[in-house]
Amino acid sequence: MAPPKAPDSTRRSDRSRRAIYDAALALVGETGYAKTTIEGIAARAGVGKQTIYRWWPSKAAVLMEAFLDLAARQSAEAAEAAGGEAAGGEAAATDAAGTGIPDTGDLAADLKLVLRATVDELNDPAAAAPTRALTAEGIVDPALGAQFVERLLDPQIQLYVTRLRAAQDAGEVRADIDPRTALELLIAPLTHRWLLRTLPLTHAYADEIVDYALRGLSPRP
Amino acid sequence: MAPPKAPDSTRRSDRSRRAIYDAALALVGETGYAKTTIEGIAARAGVGKQTIYRWWPSKAAVLMEAFLDLAARQSAEAAEAAGGEAAGGEAAATDAAGTGIPDTGDLAADLKLVLRATVDELNDPAAAAPTRALTAEGIVDPALGAQFVERLLDPQIQLYVTRLRAAQDAGEVRADIDPRTALELLIAPLTHRWLLRTLPLTHAYADEIVDYALRGLSPRP
Repeated sequence: MAPPKAPDSTRRSDRSRRAIYDAALALVGETGYAKTTIEGIAARAGVGKQTIYRWWPSKAAVLMEAFLDLAARQSAEAAEAAGGEAAGGEAAATDAAGTGIPDTGDLAADLKLVLRATVDELNDPAAAAPTRALTAEGIVDPALGAQFVERLLDPQIQLYVTRLRAAQDAGEVRADIDPRTALELLIAPLTHRWLLRTLPLTHAYADEIVDYALRGLSPRP
Repeated sequence: MAPPKAPDSTRRSDRSRRAIYDAALALVGETGYAKTTIEGIAARAGVGKQTIYRWWPSKAAVLMEAFLDLAARQSAEAAEAAGGEAAGGEAAATDAAGTGIPDTGDLAADLKLVLRATVDELNDPAAAAPTRALTAEGIVDPALGAQFVERLLDPQIQLYVTRLRAAQDAGEVRADIDPRTALELLIAPLTHRWLLRTLPLTHAYADEIVDYALRGLSPRP
């Protein structure tokens, strides 16, 4: 009996999609957002440009999805590296927001684990150029920036809100703290240091940021 | 007796320099870094392009100086708005790092004053487009980014280090805190929110960041 056709065509589609994502990320990293074109992506991926136009309405759309896919793969790798198989590698691979922030009951340890993984992602040379190119474009293009925030950043931010609320319930974070503001003390320093390249981005730095944010700079009375 | 020639030629130079800075900032804000050219700046400023080449070696150099000049003027305005005439309006006009962070003995109040002024600078529509364009270019162009950090950001960072060290001497900040790391909890959230446009950048937000950074998120024992 001949095998059904659908799986083969699905495999071909998956292969094309992966080639298109890889080509899109490579090109935007090499030549910048402005010079990346649908034609260029198609040529590099070895597909017809109609294939791209059939699946995505614009250059911004294909780049955004390539980027979400990259972020999801990075999260899955980070979860694996952290031994987080229990959290579900499959969920991570399909969820740009990653696998969530663990809740072991020790907020500082959980945040350090996640921020160290973020440091590793930001220091990953394969992802650095496309991530920088898309971030830079979002800074000068409000529509693209808004998509970037809505589709990539806000889901991650929500994970911190959830974890900080749980810490409030457990008495590990003051009840009068607004988690949505508080999380910026944790994630913004890493982004700032990475984007502006002020100083090296290390695990020790991630740990220090968590300790400072939780304990504060003022002496305890 | 005829007046000496030097002051007139100095005035002409000052006028040309101002026109070139204004043209450079307007163009980079309107068309982005890549499409801004020395020829375009010269045409818009109403000077010959040789005038620009005589004073600056490259497009990056003229844009960087235009930007430092803009930052110095913003600092001078902020100092005036804060009633800081005593701190020296003239010093501010020639010092990209601004007039320093006041030391009234109340660290929280001093930081809120400075971060509120930073919020006003970042929300200034005249400065927003060129500042975004240059920041975005620095993110993808390491050489320009390094200049940006060295000439504009590091002098500002040093002001926070100095103020936090004074607070340590006064017992307002724990002795085991590294001021160079700690200041990132104060400035990075504002930059993050402004660059990525996650949420509105307000004085109330600046105050909250200062309070959270100084007191920490954990409850006091």
